[in-house]
Amino acid sequence: MEKIRIGSKIPVYPMPIALVGAHVDNKPNFLTVAWWSMVNFKPPLLAVVINKGHYTNNGIKENKTFSVNIPSSDMVKATDYCSTVSGFEEDKSTLFKIFYGELKTAPMIEESPLSCECKLIQTVEFASHEVFIGEIVTTYSEEQYLTHERPDIKKINPILYSMYDNKYWKLGEHIGVAMHIGKNYK
Amino acid sequence: MEKIRIGSKIPVYPMPIALVGAHVDNKPNFLTVAWWSMVNFKPPLLAVVINKGHYTNNGIKENKTFSVNIPSSDMVKATDYCSTVSGFEEDKSTLFKIFYGELKTAPMIEESPLSCECKLIQTVEFASHEVFIGEIVTTYSEEQYLTHERPDIKKINPILYSMYDNKYWKLGEHIGVAMHIGKNYK
Repeated sequence: MEKIRIGSKIPVYPMPIALVGAHVDNKPNFLTVAWWSMVNFKPPLLAVVINKGHYTNNGIKENKTFSVNIPSSDMVKATDYCSTVSGFEEDKSTLFKIFYGELKTAPMIEESPLSCECKLIQTVEFASHEVFIGEIVTTYSEEQYLTHERPDIKKINPILYSMYDNKYWKLGEHIGVAMHIGKNYK
Repeated sequence: MEKIRIGSKIPVYPMPIALVGAHVDNKPNFLTVAWWSMVNFKPPLLAVVINKGHYTNNGIKENKTFSVNIPSSDMVKATDYCSTVSGFEEDKSTLFKIFYGELKTAPMIEESPLSCECKLIQTVEFASHEVFIGEIVTTYSEEQYLTHERPDIKKINPILYSMYDNKYWKLGEHIGVAMHIGKNYK
């Protein structure tokens, strides 16, 4: 079928939802982020992409620490709330039960099935957004989310987000094993 | 429940699958990528994260162009094939029907519901991976994947990937409208 040019548009793809935690003004704060990715394997580095105007950014820069928490679908309302209300206006420090690891200024969410505490190692700046590169110091989960001692994505039950239609989604059905299902494709 | 420290591990989250296209040795080549994200809104910039050893990297650096193609779940075998076989060993230029936009060295996949041609504007290097920052020049889709003239994620039917269990997944059910469902959470 004929290709349609739809401008220099952001592609529609399933963005993984995370809650980024940081200490701002000496208080825990959480921001919903859909733009983030792993960026290095050894050491494990991840990048979270945040619009420059956000309250969270100053806290990350000041303490050089932050957390990435994967919310489950059951947490969709609290997760969405963290994207609608700014830390400039509202104290978000009591929304969740909070725990800390080695880094004393990277607040993590107890209700979250999986959390990483990160040390800021680099910041990359673009026109509207800042990218915070964090080294994962420790990852935390719970027995109920593990299978064979590893975090299990179906038990974690994460939230996806799509732009334009502005919708949250669950993970769907399993469609194949990687490095296997397409092995003899050609 | 008690938190378990699972080391400085990469978090388990639903990674969006893309096929990155580039001209390498004057031929189209495609690599499956699970680590990528938008990194800026205006202009629209995306970052694709690729292990340094890959065949694709030299092509992106040489031509300063690449494409990001969102495969549908129907393309899971071809998509997986592109992750199992290196361009160093195998010619992947005939796997898909290919089209070009303004950038003559950013091959795009006709079978893919959504493709972006990108101009390389920056490279960020980490220990094992390189991050290619591309400005989206034009995004392409087809009538059958649009709703109200915008790409529709359910029609695109993308592929997600989870580490450790090494599985591909479909997008699941809709669980809420963003900036809305959690508005009155507190």
